[in-house]
Amino acid sequence: MTHSLTESVTPSREFMATTEKSPEEEHPKKAFGLAAKDPSGVLSPFKFSRRATGEKDVTFKVLYCGICHTDLHMVKNDWGFSTYPLVPGHEIVGVVTEVGSKVQKFKVGDKVGVGYLVGSCNSCDDCANDLENYCPKNIQTCGAKYHDGTITYGGYSDIMVADEHYVLRIPENLPLDATAPLLCAGITVYSPLKYYGLDKPGMHVGVVGLGGLGNVAVKFAKAMGINVTVISTSLKKKEEAIDHLGADSFLVSRDNDQMQAAMGTLDGIIDTVSAQHPLLPLISLLKRHGKLVMVGAPAKPLELPVFPLLAGRTLIGGSTIGGIKETQEMLDFAAKHNIKADIEVVPVDYVNTALERLSKADVRYRFVIDIGNTINSSA
Amino acid sequence: MTHSLTESVTPSREFMATTEKSPEEEHPKKAFGLAAKDPSGVLSPFKFSRRATGEKDVTFKVLYCGICHTDLHMVKNDWGFSTYPLVPGHEIVGVVTEVGSKVQKFKVGDKVGVGYLVGSCNSCDDCANDLENYCPKNIQTCGAKYHDGTITYGGYSDIMVADEHYVLRIPENLPLDATAPLLCAGITVYSPLKYYGLDKPGMHVGVVGLGGLGNVAVKFAKAMGINVTVISTSLKKKEEAIDHLGADSFLVSRDNDQMQAAMGTLDGIIDTVSAQHPLLPLISLLKRHGKLVMVGAPAKPLELPVFPLLAGRTLIGGSTIGGIKETQEMLDFAAKHNIKADIEVVPVDYVNTALERLSKADVRYRFVIDIGNTINSSA
Repeated sequence: MTHSLTESVTPSREFMATTEKSPEEEHPKKAFGLAAKDPSGVLSPFKFSRRATGEKDVTFKVLYCGICHTDLHMVKNDWGFSTYPLVPGHEIVGVVTEVGSKVQKFKVGDKVGVGYLVGSCNSCDDCANDLENYCPKNIQTCGAKYHDGTITYGGYSDIMVADEHYVLRIPENLPLDATAPLLCAGITVYSPLKYYGLDKPGMHVGVVGLGGLGNVAVKFAKAMGINVTVISTSLKKKEEAIDHLGADSFLVSRDNDQMQAAMGTLDGIIDTVSAQHPLLPLISLLKRHGKLVMVGAPAKPLELPVFPLLAGRTLIGGSTIGGIKETQEMLDFAAKHNIKADIEVVPVDYVNTALERLSKADVRYRFVIDIGNTINSSA
Repeated sequence: MTHSLTESVTPSREFMATTEKSPEEEHPKKAFGLAAKDPSGVLSPFKFSRRATGEKDVTFKVLYCGICHTDLHMVKNDWGFSTYPLVPGHEIVGVVTEVGSKVQKFKVGDKVGVGYLVGSCNSCDDCANDLENYCPKNIQTCGAKYHDGTITYGGYSDIMVADEHYVLRIPENLPLDATAPLLCAGITVYSPLKYYGLDKPGMHVGVVGLGGLGNVAVKFAKAMGINVTVISTSLKKKEEAIDHLGADSFLVSRDNDQMQAAMGTLDGIIDTVSAQHPLLPLISLLKRHGKLVMVGAPAKPLELPVFPLLAGRTLIGGSTIGGIKETQEMLDFAAKHNIKADIEVVPVDYVNTALERLSKADVRYRFVIDIGNTINSSA
């Protein structure tokens, strides 16, 4: 996830002032994690609490949590609505330790995950259509206000409690660590491939940017039978893209001859880039009636040339994560095709270094925190 | 039509230099019309010729021709690829005077029309799918190079010869003058309403800009059972939009309170504006999964905010005219629902004044030249 969906988040100070009981009183479960206390970008140990397992809740011991670029933005308050203390993390996997009396899908010992969402309104059209990700009142896994008025804390922590509706089942054959990033990065690319009809075998699809999202985009597209072209600003990732990820071809976006030769060859493009970048060269790569799908979120507007849009009946669309049902479908698809994210597993005490390296795109392709083995709640 | 599809047009000088016979020798049919001889914007009488009626050709006496904004751009060489002499006009209607031996669909006396295209490659996927409008080798009705190497001349002229494939049947109950603009403006808005699925009864669709395109967009959308909101920069067209065109509501795009109140209410928007304009306020009017369709072509890139595209899974698409089959379908739909363009009929000697008034948007909503009654080939 590279951006935020909620419109506003009540600062925790306000919550503290208007609630009679403190979260510690409301929430009996002791929890421990890493939190940003301010926008400095540095996380530090944080003791907090989580609610008791409600009748529809699943409680699980967190084993791994991916580090998404959104975590970095939220920690640094890049989007202006972060509240502190902030426990990041929305690519969370673990093992169920307790279930509520009305939980139907899970039992103690199940391998589960939680992604970007822990709640939604359950009454809008989007919720009715399994599109909780577009529910305007959905509740993000960290830094949002939950139904009970408390602030949500993410997966950089030892335990998690969530309504079973938002809990995913991790298929048996998938490794927990390399599956964590699928809960955000995976569904972020899987959902638009499906929605925009770019999932038909034999289609030609470009993936722009080979980071945390691009890495899994190539894998899902290949598993769908797509001919995949990776488009990157430099040659240095070519070998990796072709030999390791299985992409069919590689284009250097700054090489005009290459780009010219590839004009009009792609049915669609998944653009994962969050930095400012020109759209015209990408639109030019599309066949007529082609689709350019943005899943990265540049902070400032991009330049949209309209003529080529008309002449090719080109479509530019956006997409953000996916609904819970589709996220489970994505995990099951990953299990069937043995799709795993490329990850670098790091211990809890490496997280600040990892965040710094992530800010320089120095990771192949996702950091995953080994929480189960390295968290030390006595720290 | 507000822009051009062809990539290049060989200047007529080159043609004259490399062809053994002049067009007059190749083409035995004397024709008379109005042509731009240079980019001054002024048309003057022009004697030329058209080819003999080929075996698949339909020849017709031109009765009316609409004046599209594209004509103005082409006359003034605004897009840099106009060639002179240039006979504009691609909203052409008339009565068949001769048909070739292999013509199947038309006979002498039939009421017919020709729109933006008179040819295409007949071998690409788009041609195979009745999307000649997206064929990269399609041949525009004026200022393009025809299969035989000659330059095409448009409908500001007394006769027209065209391959029957590109000739439309004008339904009996439609008046010829008010139907002419449908051949370009009509199909330009009808096709995207269908393609982007904005044609379902009960949907809410916005129409931005109430000019030649917007006028017919409202009428087609209403006939489809759509709830139509006209979005304009000022209040002055409100009465017209509601009382005369039958729009359901009217929004002044510069009125922040109005725009705020209408946020998230539209399933789609047909944006007919060719001037630079902000997209964010329009995107904000869309429901989640809404569609903003551009049919006007601003010369410079517009600013595209990406965040709202992601958060709402919004789609921005383009569209340009329509295929021949769909153009006939549009005419038949217009006949069924009695859809006519609002026009101001002008005589041939008024055309230069009409072009000047059009450049100031001083027309409700389309000039149509009464060629049948006012052209004087002895002039």
